[in-house]
Amino acid sequence: MKLDFYKERLKGMLNHKRYEHSLGVMNTAVQLAAIHGADVERAALAGLMHDCARGVPGDTLLLMAQEFDLPMLEVDLALPVLLHAPVGAQLARRDFGVQDEVVLQAIAVHTLGDEHMTLLDKVLFVADKVEPGRYFQNVDKLRALAERDIDQALLNCYDLSVSYALRLGDQVHPRMIAARNRLISEKPNRKI
Amino acid sequence: MKLDFYKERLKGMLNHKRYEHSLGVMNTAVQLAAIHGADVERAALAGLMHDCARGVPGDTLLLMAQEFDLPMLEVDLALPVLLHAPVGAQLARRDFGVQDEVVLQAIAVHTLGDEHMTLLDKVLFVADKVEPGRYFQNVDKLRALAERDIDQALLNCYDLSVSYALRLGDQVHPRMIAARNRLISEKPNRKI
Repeated sequence: MKLDFYKERLKGMLNHKRYEHSLGVMNTAVQLAAIHGADVERAALAGLMHDCARGVPGDTLLLMAQEFDLPMLEVDLALPVLLHAPVGAQLARRDFGVQDEVVLQAIAVHTLGDEHMTLLDKVLFVADKVEPGRYFQNVDKLRALAERDIDQALLNCYDLSVSYALRLGDQVHPRMIAARNRLISEKPNRKI
Repeated sequence: MKLDFYKERLKGMLNHKRYEHSLGVMNTAVQLAAIHGADVERAALAGLMHDCARGVPGDTLLLMAQEFDLPMLEVDLALPVLLHAPVGAQLARRDFGVQDEVVLQAIAVHTLGDEHMTLLDKVLFVADKVEPGRYFQNVDKLRALAERDIDQALLNCYDLSVSYALRLGDQVHPRMIAARNRLISEKPNRKI
């Protein structure tokens, strides 16, 4: 099975904790994909690979983002770690040979979301927050919600990230705000 | 004194509570201006006039913003009440004869902030949140902070507004996020 090949390579790139997290996200993404009708094989691959660049230091991520010609904003200089998502998509393509653009896109938007999210994008984003290794207040409620309503769970994930940035006094990435605003505006008749 | 002329007209445009709020903001803005070295007369005028369009309904604010050719984003359609600030600046000029661009600018940015805030802009923004008629958790701490550190107080005001939008499930205006990010990025050596 091709996933075993990816797993072997990932083990060499991520520390134990992050590798275990990747397996957790893979499993949770598969479960959520099955529930909500997304492609299960793509969910597995995206979940396994999503953090392949998470071990790359922030300064290097900035350089790699430039080399890959990724769109950058001033705020990215202050929050370079978030670039592990789009850089990771590039590494998954270049170094692992992942060619499925749908999977690569899900990896690319898993830290900030996007104004245009596929179901797979949403599944990966949420799975990353609720996989079994995650512990935070009300995580169990969010896990249950993720199975019931992926859009509402996604909104809650955005809210958690923004609240966390506020608490730390960190900048908030405008791309996440745009993604969150879009999600809300697309549900005009429902308080999500 | 010219402020009396403005007060009489404002009384006819705002309900009692909002008029009292305007007087409170005027007084607090004057105090903060005196402490931090901003122009006290401008602070008084900006404080008094800042909500002159607050009684205008959202639909009308949208129409007026278009008539005044104000820059609009899609999010403004979902959050029209915030337009009372830039529309108010236009009304202050057109209907009250306020000609001081520095004052008009402070009125225009008092709901969302701006990437480039003058000291007067900051004083008005914060005074609007901490005037004596405001009640919320830790408002007294914020009042004390406003006297000590106007930038930190401004950041806390942004955080309050963003947190409030998260709680309501409302969209967050990207202009406020840009303003908050700029405020943080301009203090690279200090956790503000």
